[in-house]
Amino acid sequence: MNLWRRSRERVATKIEVGVLGATGTVGQELIQLLDQHPWFQVTWLAASERSRGQRYGDLAWTLPGKVPAGVANQRVEPPWPRGAPHMVFSALDPAAAGEAEPAFAAAGHYVVSNARNFRMDPLVPLLVPEVNAQHLDLVEIQQQKKRWSGAIVTSPDCSTVFLAVVLGALREFQVKRVLVTTLQALSGTDCRGVASVDAAADVIPCVDGEEHNIETETQKILGRLVVDSIVPDPVQISAQAARVPVFHGHTEMVSLELDERVSSEQVREAFQEFSSSAHALHLPSAPAKPILVHEERDRPKSHLDAESGRGMLVHVGRLRKCSVLGHKFVVLGHNLIRGAAGAAVLNAELIVARSLFAPAQRLP
Amino acid sequence: MNLWRRSRERVATKIEVGVLGATGTVGQELIQLLDQHPWFQVTWLAASERSRGQRYGDLAWTLPGKVPAGVANQRVEPPWPRGAPHMVFSALDPAAAGEAEPAFAAAGHYVVSNARNFRMDPLVPLLVPEVNAQHLDLVEIQQQKKRWSGAIVTSPDCSTVFLAVVLGALREFQVKRVLVTTLQALSGTDCRGVASVDAAADVIPCVDGEEHNIETETQKILGRLVVDSIVPDPVQISAQAARVPVFHGHTEMVSLELDERVSSEQVREAFQEFSSSAHALHLPSAPAKPILVHEERDRPKSHLDAESGRGMLVHVGRLRKCSVLGHKFVVLGHNLIRGAAGAAVLNAELIVARSLFAPAQRLP
Amino acid sequence: MNLWRRSRERVATKIEVGVLGATGTVGQELIQLLDQHPWFQVTWLAASERSRGQRYGDLAWTLPGKVPAGVANQRVEPPWPRGAPHMVFSALDPAAAGEAEPAFAAAGHYVVSNARNFRMDPLVPLLVPEVNAQHLDLVEIQQQKKRWSGAIVTSPDCSTVFLAVVLGALREFQVKRVLVTTLQALSGTDCRGVASVDAAADVIPCVDGEEHNIETETQKILGRLVVDSIVPDPVQISAQAARVPVFHGHTEMVSLELDERVSSEQVREAFQEFSSSAHALHLPSAPAKPILVHEERDRPKSHLDAESGRGMLVHVGRLRKCSVLGHKFVVLGHNLIRGAAGAAVLNAELIVARSLFAPAQRLP
Amino acid sequence: MNLWRRSRERVATKIEVGVLGATGTVGQELIQLLDQHPWFQVTWLAASERSRGQRYGDLAWTLPGKVPAGVANQRVEPPWPRGAPHMVFSALDPAAAGEAEPAFAAAGHYVVSNARNFRMDPLVPLLVPEVNAQHLDLVEIQQQKKRWSGAIVTSPDCSTVFLAVVLGALREFQVKRVLVTTLQALSGTDCRGVASVDAAADVIPCVDGEEHNIETETQKILGRLVVDSIVPDPVQISAQAARVPVFHGHTEMVSLELDERVSSEQVREAFQEFSSSAHALHLPSAPAKPILVHEERDRPKSHLDAESGRGMLVHVGRLRKCSVLGHKFVVLGHNLIRGAAGAAVLNAELIVARSLFAPAQRLP
Repeated sequence: MNLWRRSRERVATKIEVGVLGATGTVGQELIQLLDQHPWFQVTWLAASERSRGQRYGDLAWTLPGKVPAGVANQRVEPPWPRGAPHMVFSALDPAAAGEAEPAFAAAGHYVVSNARNFRMDPLVPLLVPEVNAQHLDLVEIQQQKKRWSGAIVTSPDCSTVFLAVVLGALREFQVKRVLVTTLQALSGTDCRGVASVDAAADVIPCVDGEEHNIETETQKILGRLVVDSIVPDPVQISAQAARVPVFHGHTEMVSLELDERVSSEQVREAFQEFSSSAHALHLPSAPAKPILVHEERDRPKSHLDAESGRGMLVHVGRLRKCSVLGHKFVVLGHNLIRGAAGAAVLNAELIVARSLFAPAQRLP
Repeated sequence: MNLWRRSRERVATKIEVGVLGATGTVGQELIQLLDQHPWFQVTWLAASERSRGQRYGDLAWTLPGKVPAGVANQRVEPPWPRGAPHMVFSALDPAAAGEAEPAFAAAGHYVVSNARNFRMDPLVPLLVPEVNAQHLDLVEIQQQKKRWSGAIVTSPDCSTVFLAVVLGALREFQVKRVLVTTLQALSGTDCRGVASVDAAADVIPCVDGEEHNIETETQKILGRLVVDSIVPDPVQISAQAARVPVFHGHTEMVSLELDERVSSEQVREAFQEFSSSAHALHLPSAPAKPILVHEERDRPKSHLDAESGRGMLVHVGRLRKCSVLGHKFVVLGHNLIRGAAGAAVLNAELIVARSLFAPAQRLP
Repeated sequence: MNLWRRSRERVATKIEVGVLGATGTVGQELIQLLDQHPWFQVTWLAASERSRGQRYGDLAWTLPGKVPAGVANQRVEPPWPRGAPHMVFSALDPAAAGEAEPAFAAAGHYVVSNARNFRMDPLVPLLVPEVNAQHLDLVEIQQQKKRWSGAIVTSPDCSTVFLAVVLGALREFQVKRVLVTTLQALSGTDCRGVASVDAAADVIPCVDGEEHNIETETQKILGRLVVDSIVPDPVQISAQAARVPVFHGHTEMVSLELDERVSSEQVREAFQEFSSSAHALHLPSAPAKPILVHEERDRPKSHLDAESGRGMLVHVGRLRKCSVLGHKFVVLGHNLIRGAAGAAVLNAELIVARSLFAPAQRLP
Repeated sequence: MNLWRRSRERVATKIEVGVLGATGTVGQELIQLLDQHPWFQVTWLAASERSRGQRYGDLAWTLPGKVPAGVANQRVEPPWPRGAPHMVFSALDPAAAGEAEPAFAAAGHYVVSNARNFRMDPLVPLLVPEVNAQHLDLVEIQQQKKRWSGAIVTSPDCSTVFLAVVLGALREFQVKRVLVTTLQALSGTDCRGVASVDAAADVIPCVDGEEHNIETETQKILGRLVVDSIVPDPVQISAQAARVPVFHGHTEMVSLELDERVSSEQVREAFQEFSSSAHALHLPSAPAKPILVHEERDRPKSHLDAESGRGMLVHVGRLRKCSVLGHKFVVLGHNLIRGAAGAAVLNAELIVARSLFAPAQRLP
């Protein structure tokens, strides 16, 4: 029985959290998702030196709507642990995350990170709560070996998340080989440098580093924690990543090989019935069914589907036979929510639900 | 020795040709490509009843620039053989082509068709001159069995053309299995019905019928003519087709399995050295090298590359290892030129060069 | 005191309404806006013969999310008055509206129309509740002269709505001359026929009929009801309309001439303080402040602002001096909501609030 | 009689020119336009320190096709006068142009600049050869007052060029007031900083500095050279500038006031008959008729028309009455060619044709 959750329901106090990298796209998305969150309250914001000391509401806000009232008057702090709450979300650039995140963990903070720096660190969980919630056990080992009183927990590359969820749903069928082509939206966290003239109405047949991330991160996520490390799943994955002129929503065309006796119908049912420990734990951001299967011949489509289910669904459509690998289908997810900010919030919820984290505790 | 070509060079007379379906996008593209063509001259235009009798220059012209002067004053004929030149290009809708094309062939005309109706007819060549020029031998059998004095010769679906050319270049390596995801431009011949609001800045994860076309047409193109029919190549192909908001240029992400001893370097060389009988025959529309290999990490790109080489090149980039099937790379081609109108013009040139066609001959 | 509204609050019964043209984009948008509406409940759907008798939930739904549960099982009726509720919204094509709408009005129905057919009829109110709620008095005259027991009330062209609201807010300053260039989104009700390839990444410098609509409709909306007809406002308006590759949200660049003593600051205040009788009447769809003034140099922007305020706001930005006419600024509104479906819902709310309509009443 | 042109025709020697800022978009466009130019040959390239010493063909080339063979093997020089040819084109960033251009002019070079730094300098011609070729007389005054042996000649902002040409054609009608809304393409020289996600399928209702440039530059271009300075034309111009998701081609919606007796037909004829001293001087880049008038109701359109006439035409369409100012119409031009690189090449041609420049001369 999770005592903390019981008390949470009784006591109205929310857990204070911070956001590192609060001014970028993912940082803003985090702040929007955490506004009105039933468990968390943002009380501390940090960004690079440039914004230091400024009122958050005076900085550029590039999401629809206005800056949530609860944070508009907060001042932007420098990205140092001093004064930060016990739990901090990190949407830092890789250039900053490499130094800052370990500093926070060493100082006793739980860092729920969306940065890529420590995703493949053998001591750091790369978490998709629907798929590998048990990898959280790595935190204790991490703390021992790194001599940290805090911890770092990461979420994967946005394209990896959607693939990991669908492969997680098919685990019992022994996924052997996967080919995936990603058609990624422009709002991806790494593409602000794409000049607009290269992106308008053109396919860019390359997203730097993305293919390698998808291939290796997915193996880690699907792996098993044996003794004190994660043994990657032996599934063979080959990815081709392209950038397409779409606002939000990564589309992925997947072909895969399962145990040869598995029928399309069984795959469909596995997707429809997939429900996760995340939902069982009543995590507020976990949909009851993480995967929504579409039957229309031209769905899922990014501008119609990506935002449904508050952006936390993984959409599957066009499930059919593949003459080469056995099964093929289309996957869609919201890259900024389920693929980034929402993934981090879900991870934080899992940490709290698993009682790894004592919310009342404040660092000295 | 091709007597006809010799005389062609001496005599300045061009071959009179007609265009069926002259008002659609591919029809217009045909007229533009045939303007100033060294061998052909458009002297007859036909379209649906609606445009009958109108001056071609008064109808809607949706390509850049103006209607070529040579055809602007011609009147649009109905799509019947009477009065048509011996050779006609067909860019008819499938709804009209099914009846019209056999009528022209029966009346003694060579129909060089871009419509899909007879592509898979066992007696009709589905021609990609760089790959299967010898399939033209089927014309004689077609004429015997169908009791036609003319003939129908077809070009493939636009997405098929590019794939067929790259697989043709790899023939010696025994291509076994192919997975391809197509990112198709909006100017595809079948997509005028896509409402603009569905297409702007969105991926449509489905192009009706396209996947089946790519899979079956490619097998026929790579097949061998045995006695009086084509035995399809046993290569296994699985396609996923999506529409993306791009003007022109289909991008294809290809993974494939070759004889396992073949290296990436050998694949690259095979692409670079691929030269076709089409060029050897001095066909005016055939580039010396049908495939252009790009080395930059983010090429080929549709708006930079699709129109180079007068739109007749097949572009290959990002050639690298695939952990699942062995090799992967990106392909790009201009869907309206090399994929449609240019493919038909190249087929017509091959027919002339192979002396199947006596250009001076006019039907009674 | 509005007795009906009092009783409405006490009795939980909602007013039954119908939707004519329920399968088009505006029809779907109406159904979505009316789902969970505090006053109205959709109990009757009609569309063209083609969909007759089908389950609404089985037809194509092109908006985000799913068909509202309350209507999914309803059968589509033919567009005839028999059996329809007392109040019907019309999102019919102009080709159908011309005959259907008078038939409904003659049969005793209130037709709240978004079609363009009767907008300029001298006996039909062209309503923007924030600006000319008093034009509803024309309904009684309409009923007398047309001998209808029902009535037709119309909402303007989407581009007209936004302009009418801003000019309404400036009425006291005597608007003399207005130049407006509209940059209209692809989801406009009249543009499904725009082929996608013409729209992707291109400006179409023409929207058929739109300029004339904007110029004449605005004069009618700002006009005064004198005795039994509306005297158009003498403001001179000149519009240029272009289609741009944007999903939703029409942007309008406005320059105008006011009484020469009016300062920019006074214009800004007039926009900020503008509040309408619509809000005073507690219409559920009326924002407290219909106009939102932006101060950022690059706002309003369609994908960030169009949907805020549930799509019912008119956004104004970049207010500054115009060296030719005096004042210039940028206007943005959601073309499908404030510009179409939301405009009709607001009109229906005004009709109820003004007690013109006895909701309990059902036609025989 | 222009002796230089006579000798040019006899002697096959081309004039050696340099390109400052050769790696940016306009620099590349200049190199492409100058490839195969009948008068000029690029023999010297310079860019910022970062590219110094590199082979030009090894740097990023972002235009269609490949780097012209003639320059691919040239090494990139630093942006200093030493060793540069007598005539240099400048496509430098404003940050670099402010210092570099005067240094070249002082060292005896003719700088044909596309940068904005000296456009409004009272001693520097802001040249549109079709409109104000006589402003070149300012060069002599510039040289005296600045004590330069060389000179700086500038071309306007891309949006200004198209407006200046159409106003130039209407000069005899006494243009009094002009309202213009620009819909600018993404390839504009100042917009590489627009993040792609802000640009895809969205209108950005602001182009920093552009409105002021259009208003003031146009007055200078239309002005008269009196004694030793240019008296700006008193025409009142008010501009609103927006960025739209289009590759190339700025569309401008213009309303203007002329002498009130001028009819639409006279305006049309003035556009059609407008021919410039530029063409009379046989400048190779000057079209016979700088303005092309379109009659179709939905033209000019950027992707169909911008590149016609080798990108050097100014397109006008939808000429009609404006109820506020008198006349309105749509203008389109290619922003990178007629609006930038082509404008500079035309200016250089005028300088040579006017014999201001002795091509054989090389600096010590």
